Amino acid sequence: MSRVTIAPEEDRLNAQIAFAVEIDKLKRIIRRNHLIDGSRRENTAEHSWHVGMLAMVFGEHAPPETDLQRVVAMLLVHDLVEIDAGDTFIYDPVEVAAQAEAERAAADRIFGLLPDDQGKWMRELWEEFEARKTPEARFAKALDRFAPILANHLTEGGTWPLFKVKASQVKEKVRLIQEGSPSLGAYALRLVELSVARGHLAE
Amino acid sequence: MSRVTIAPEEDRLNAQIAFAVEIDKLKRIIRRNHLIDGSRRENTAEHSWHVGMLAMVFGEHAPPETDLQRVVAMLLVHDLVEIDAGDTFIYDPVEVAAQAEAERAAADRIFGLLPDDQGKWMRELWEEFEARKTPEARFAKALDRFAPILANHLTEGGTWPLFKVKASQVKEKVRLIQEGSPSLGAYALRLVELSVARGHLAE
Repeated sequence: MSRVTIAPEEDRLNAQIAFAVEIDKLKRIIRRNHLIDGSRRENTAEHSWHVGMLAMVFGEHAPPETDLQRVVAMLLVHDLVEIDAGDTFIYDPVEVAAQAEAERAAADRIFGLLPDDQGKWMRELWEEFEARKTPEARFAKALDRFAPILANHLTEGGTWPLFKVKASQVKEKVRLIQEGSPSLGAYALRLVELSVARGHLAE
Repeated sequence: MSRVTIAPEEDRLNAQIAFAVEIDKLKRIIRRNHLIDGSRRENTAEHSWHVGMLAMVFGEHAPPETDLQRVVAMLLVHDLVEIDAGDTFIYDPVEVAAQAEAERAAADRIFGLLPDDQGKWMRELWEEFEARKTPEARFAKALDRFAPILANHLTEGGTWPLFKVKASQVKEKVRLIQEGSPSLGAYALRLVELSVARGHLAE
């Protein structure tokens, strides 16, 4: 009988490489909203970078004691499931409901590529983000909602008129921002009201 | 005389917003290398997300005691100067030399948009990355060099044959990986040798 060579470290590295290669696909998932210069639609990888940066920039607008480094990590992984499940348009309730099951299956597959301990750790970050029960998750979600409102405000309404979104619907998203960060929520509300006043968002 | 109303908190938030808007431009800076599926060239914002993720995935390949959260933060900001200075092709020595001054000017302007304390903090992260004197910076640089080698290896050489890059030049970059992470350096060297064996990289 031949001796079986077990190289667990090699296996770990190979699993990590497979995951690193797989997540490259997030660069091809296209979101509804546009870049702030209006030149093209945004992809989910660059969006994830942007909101990770926002966690560093707006950190002082999180509640005291918020672990901002955890927020950054959460935001980097928060949309990985879109590789399989695609981007969900947050103003379409049917799409939002159908998405949950698809995202769980995506999480099983994608985080499952990693060594068990790492897959568990990243999946927990994603689940924490989705559950919005910790200050970190609520702040991360606030930034995730803040970014497209800022972009739409700066691009004459951006996706709002395009998808016939109304101010009352955007204000529901602003409430999520307020729950994660009162000061960013107040700022977002002003942007929404200004967009309405300028005729870029229907009342 | 009218009373001057000073609202320093408002000023801080406005500066943070201006920076958040400005950095959106990183999504339009196009790098030499392609996505792993070969479909298009990569932009610097999505690259920054990818290497930030790699810091989380390959953390155990950093020297013990490396502050991985600092590595993630460093990688998110490491290429912001490209908004003004553009991407540098690392295999062009003339381009690399001319770039240093342009990047310093870019850092002055871009980090200068932030409130002073935050601009200083982020600029220090960038300078630490560039200087490669800390384990965090050496590991961050290793990941920044590892990503395109992995992508090129997986795309029949990718930018290597396109820009007539030779194995000896790639091996100089592998040395930077080894300095930040011996195990990732060893892996990258195997990828390079495999690419040579397959005829995707000239000796």
